[in-house]
Amino acid sequence: MMLLERDLIQSVGFRNVREGGEITGFRFELRMPSYRGMAASLIDGIGVRIEGLVDVAPDVPTWTLQGRTYTLEQLWQSEGVRWQLEEPAVVTVPLPGGLPDGIHHLEIDLRLRMSYIPQEHQPSRYQASKHVTLSPEAEGAPFRYGVSLYSYMGDYGTNTDLETALRAIADLGATGVEILGEGHVPNYPDPPQQWVDEWFALLERYGLEPTNYGSWIDTRLHSSGSAARDMTVAEGAAALQRDLRLARRLGFRFVRPKIGVVSSDLIPHPIWTEVVEASLPLAEELDVVICPEIHSPTPIRHEVVDDYIALIKRTGTKHFGLLLDTGIFQDRPIPLRPGELPGKRPDFLDGIAVDPADVFDIIEHVVFIQAKFHDIDDELEDQQIPWEPVLRALKDAGYTGYLSSEYEGERVPWRAVEQVRRQHSLMRQIADQL
Amino acid sequence: MMLLERDLIQSVGFRNVREGGEITGFRFELRMPSYRGMAASLIDGIGVRIEGLVDVAPDVPTWTLQGRTYTLEQLWQSEGVRWQLEEPAVVTVPLPGGLPDGIHHLEIDLRLRMSYIPQEHQPSRYQASKHVTLSPEAEGAPFRYGVSLYSYMGDYGTNTDLETALRAIADLGATGVEILGEGHVPNYPDPPQQWVDEWFALLERYGLEPTNYGSWIDTRLHSSGSAARDMTVAEGAAALQRDLRLARRLGFRFVRPKIGVVSSDLIPHPIWTEVVEASLPLAEELDVVICPEIHSPTPIRHEVVDDYIALIKRTGTKHFGLLLDTGIFQDRPIPLRPGELPGKRPDFLDGIAVDPADVFDIIEHVVFIQAKFHDIDDELEDQQIPWEPVLRALKDAGYTGYLSSEYEGERVPWRAVEQVRRQHSLMRQIADQL
Repeated sequence: MMLLERDLIQSVGFRNVREGGEITGFRFELRMPSYRGMAASLIDGIGVRIEGLVDVAPDVPTWTLQGRTYTLEQLWQSEGVRWQLEEPAVVTVPLPGGLPDGIHHLEIDLRLRMSYIPQEHQPSRYQASKHVTLSPEAEGAPFRYGVSLYSYMGDYGTNTDLETALRAIADLGATGVEILGEGHVPNYPDPPQQWVDEWFALLERYGLEPTNYGSWIDTRLHSSGSAARDMTVAEGAAALQRDLRLARRLGFRFVRPKIGVVSSDLIPHPIWTEVVEASLPLAEELDVVICPEIHSPTPIRHEVVDDYIALIKRTGTKHFGLLLDTGIFQDRPIPLRPGELPGKRPDFLDGIAVDPADVFDIIEHVVFIQAKFHDIDDELEDQQIPWEPVLRALKDAGYTGYLSSEYEGERVPWRAVEQVRRQHSLMRQIADQL
Repeated sequence: MMLLERDLIQSVGFRNVREGGEITGFRFELRMPSYRGMAASLIDGIGVRIEGLVDVAPDVPTWTLQGRTYTLEQLWQSEGVRWQLEEPAVVTVPLPGGLPDGIHHLEIDLRLRMSYIPQEHQPSRYQASKHVTLSPEAEGAPFRYGVSLYSYMGDYGTNTDLETALRAIADLGATGVEILGEGHVPNYPDPPQQWVDEWFALLERYGLEPTNYGSWIDTRLHSSGSAARDMTVAEGAAALQRDLRLARRLGFRFVRPKIGVVSSDLIPHPIWTEVVEASLPLAEELDVVICPEIHSPTPIRHEVVDDYIALIKRTGTKHFGLLLDTGIFQDRPIPLRPGELPGKRPDFLDGIAVDPADVFDIIEHVVFIQAKFHDIDDELEDQQIPWEPVLRALKDAGYTGYLSSEYEGERVPWRAVEQVRRQHSLMRQIADQL
């Protein structure tokens, strides 16, 4: 099924429209504001305004319902056409050349006729406005673009499901999807085959490919209780290999194991080298690359990263690499949360501000990038991550792989979908200008 | 699928537990607070407190996962048991005699071990509290209890789906479900047979019966545009009969048509009598009762109601009756909404305060009751509807049918599910004391 966003104006679906190679206007999707669907002949039009760019009367936009497009007069004459509760209406506004990339403040004035309300209060008016981000026109080369379902944490399973999320990603023109095995695979580690089939059917429907699969090596799996003990190499390898197999079953090419730590500065548990080395033959057989992440507060120039690279050099493997999380470039603080006191939280939340030029040291081993971010404001300014120097360094260093969104900001319901749109718009516009 | 409530502490599932006829404690359901599911051996317990009633240490509650129940020590020893992201954990707290009916302020202190966080910050603690309503112990005779999916307006299709809603209703011990044809039937009026099959499968799974089906007779269907015209009797009858057939297909016994109006005091369009009379043979054939509603601002003593009763007497039909909406008893105002000015909204929003004793005049024709309400506070006090005199009058008048919740208060996401629980708890406790 598909779930709609709470706001009447949906972020997903806001994009320019083309006819014969020309951009002729833009379209957006609207959730039915009533508590029921209704015959489309009850629609009395919609005024649409974007200050300085568009201001059209209620009879100007066209309506697409059940896959067919109508003028308002055609709706009035129609029989059997419906604006269903579960189906957003697509509103198309003529505008030669279309809208520029970025965030637009879209205002609507919708009119619906309710037969059961006295005539003097009719039509019912629904006025709404929202800052929405256009599906990017910028190409964004040389990078590829994806989204991690982690971005929708909190939403996933409460107001977003798999199809809803994949549709939102595809609507950006992104091509890659990243998941967390233990987060998004039902009945992990043994999903029903029916779900696996549906997974591949949805990927095909939305034109997406599986990229990176997040896993955990829970070194503290049995560290509580009367028989508390440490994780063994055999157990760690079994955990990693379980995820390698599941990742492959779902079509993923990269697996990021999150390894338990033994120190304040995130030194991984010492079993990690043996666990990984014991799993390299399987990774090779499955053609999956194991790639632990370089993640704040660990910078690029750190013994943990040196050890990862040493393993690559020692084994000569092509199935182990580095995953870079852009949170290491954060150079402005994440705002204090309610109740959080300055100086009372880990320093790294203010940003460890790694120099983007450091990527040159490791770029030959970087196989995947998680584009971590927290907040992009209504002016399309990222409040924490300096994308211009980061993307410039990555381009100059020759990286042409994925930038996979990891929204990690406020977990306000439905916020992530619009934030991810902003990030893609921002990154692709910057890349085009480099 | 099933969607969880946003709050960690779920309202649905909070109830006393019985063993061998004795109440031995209570249970509630908890959404995984992490962004991934995890092995259950990583759970480090949960403290649970309800002031004055319960205060237990983290190792006291038991955990039910994948249908099996474990002590904390058993979880620590477990292999393969998981707290999945999509599966709420059931926490059971021993308490001989259980909790009393009503709202409780439940506080939890959950601990989970994260291997990837430095030991000095472990275990991760999740402290949360919520006012939650116990699934009622009160029987609530002589009435039967149901819920209209209209109660979940705004949630439905954005953060609630059919199964999630039906599960919430069944969890109250309610037995009836009411829908709006144009609101809840996908691809109305022609749902895929697969959906119809699933509808019946879900009703069986959750022990619910279809009660009332809401429909519309849109007399203004073609009142806009260059060929604007009024609805004909034939068109009105076709609309009503379409819904009678669909209601029957879905197992409903009552159909409430919402008829277009022609005056400020909601006089129905004059085609209504001919439309209904033309449809009575079909209603009889399908064994469905057509029941327009008595709905604020129309009181019981009103010509509209007299006309409905006149039709019954004139035709002698058993397939036309009255649906009573308890909004007519509202005797305190609905709070002003943001931007709403006193005196600038319809007076009936302050309540038309029909005398509950008026039900005696019409009770022989009342076939269904929609238990409209707006707000029940943390003390289980309804802020608008005087349930004690209303239920007393209905009982004394001999009504033994459904009270079907229609929550119509603030459309804050996820608010309705808890409000409906409060209403059932309140109505059933009052009924038991009459």
